[in-house]
Amino acid sequence: MTEAAPRPLIGIDGGGTSCRIAVLHDGRRSEVRCGPANVSTDPEAAISTILEGLDDAARAAGLSPEQMARGQAFVGLAGAIDRRETDFVADRMPFDRIAVADDRPAAVIGALAGQDGTVAGLGTGSFMARSRGESLMLIGGWGLALGDEASGAWLGRGLLTRSLHAHDGLLEHSPLTREIMDEFEGPPGVVRFSLRARPGDYGAFAPRIVAAAGAGDAVAQGLMTDGANHLERSVRALGWQEGERLCLIGGLAAPYASVLPEAMARDLHPPQGTALDGALTLAARVGGEVRA
Amino acid sequence: MTEAAPRPLIGIDGGGTSCRIAVLHDGRRSEVRCGPANVSTDPEAAISTILEGLDDAARAAGLSPEQMARGQAFVGLAGAIDRRETDFVADRMPFDRIAVADDRPAAVIGALAGQDGTVAGLGTGSFMARSRGESLMLIGGWGLALGDEASGAWLGRGLLTRSLHAHDGLLEHSPLTREIMDEFEGPPGVVRFSLRARPGDYGAFAPRIVAAAGAGDAVAQGLMTDGANHLERSVRALGWQEGERLCLIGGLAAPYASVLPEAMARDLHPPQGTALDGALTLAARVGGEVRA
Repeated sequence: MTEAAPRPLIGIDGGGTSCRIAVLHDGRRSEVRCGPANVSTDPEAAISTILEGLDDAARAAGLSPEQMARGQAFVGLAGAIDRRETDFVADRMPFDRIAVADDRPAAVIGALAGQDGTVAGLGTGSFMARSRGESLMLIGGWGLALGDEASGAWLGRGLLTRSLHAHDGLLEHSPLTREIMDEFEGPPGVVRFSLRARPGDYGAFAPRIVAAAGAGDAVAQGLMTDGANHLERSVRALGWQEGERLCLIGGLAAPYASVLPEAMARDLHPPQGTALDGALTLAARVGGEVRA
Repeated sequence: MTEAAPRPLIGIDGGGTSCRIAVLHDGRRSEVRCGPANVSTDPEAAISTILEGLDDAARAAGLSPEQMARGQAFVGLAGAIDRRETDFVADRMPFDRIAVADDRPAAVIGALAGQDGTVAGLGTGSFMARSRGESLMLIGGWGLALGDEASGAWLGRGLLTRSLHAHDGLLEHSPLTREIMDEFEGPPGVVRFSLRARPGDYGAFAPRIVAAAGAGDAVAQGLMTDGANHLERSVRALGWQEGERLCLIGGLAAPYASVLPEAMARDLHPPQGTALDGALTLAARVGGEVRA
């Protein structure tokens, strides 16, 4: 095998629910799915899961372990807060050409198919990004305790807070806040829920908020408007300007698209690809420096 | 011993750091302190701590166990979310005349010395209350995840959120937000802190926020103003009107007193007593119905 032989490209989209691995080699793309990988809560399990997934991926691509190891890999991982996690993963992967990042860059590059533009990720969490050439500017995505404004978890938590405010006489009840207080049988039930709730638990209220906003519920509409305002403020802080491609991704993309100011809605483009597509694109950009 | 013999009054102020017990008998008051009692996180330990404290309190008051058991007791307990906790505690105490509540009513009645008025509790958490005769209306106090607006923990968490916003270009850095980002060495450090932080950890930033606001820091002043606005909104929702006694208690009482609107500041009165005083006042109101 000579240096001139083509290097396979390996893209990994690693999430807390499951991971997907794509291999692009000789113009042929293959994909496998494997288990969850949360590198901040259980790093060793995440590594084992990804290594097993890579074995499957090599088989699916018809590559020997040696051919696979010559690949260029990009790994996007949920829960990779900083270099503590990304270096740990890079060191344990069988590639000498590898880049590891959190899960945002691959999602952005995938959605834009490598073109310039601005992306808002609106799922259980949230983040915003602007891509120009090979530079990527990211903001937000700091988690529900301190951020994730406009996200599903943020909407759900906001609904519970406003339901308590309505109970306390600080604002008018809406049909949805009454429903919530009835379901929880009053504030103590809401408080007990909040003591254990994780972002996904709050995010589970998001579809109801979207539906209620569509039906005219004032509190639900207020939450969506606050989210859209944060979205606009963030996208403008990134430097987005009218006429520039704007792409919303994640489960709340469509609901927010319908409440954005018209000046922004005009520039909306549907996502061109997935985070796995983005990981492959980024794998192609991984430089040739050999890791120690 | 006849029914006509005077019943001792027992007041208990139970907190997560320590508890205090007061006994008022034959015009003589005695007090003891015992360990922490968090009835929602470790109910059995809380009961043991309070029962031991009651033995000490009986000795300090010169009462036999039988005399003590004839007492009227009021127990105010941090972490008592609803009847699940208060009934549990009432059932395990050696008194047939007893009332158990969370820690707010005793604090309110103590601060107002039984007079009518409105109280805002502004410590690590927050709540507001209005007392008229024997009726007490409480709002807030739902915990940091969904409420505790204006509290120390809420101020501290708000500072970290605004520090991330400043980092992201969503608002101007102030000297304090720069200091925070330097101390945490950037967003990942802030995010890691937030993953483990409890209300007290956020509340530890409150004294710095108060000091910075006094020195003109725009972000710190904005946080204090937002807190004061919530305070005003809550106190008005309770029905407070100009000319009615208003009392701020807790570590943030003085800082907020200096930023309240003048129409409210005019009616401020210093607290007349502690939560332990309030517990004794409420013990005197405990009815004579015998518990099963």
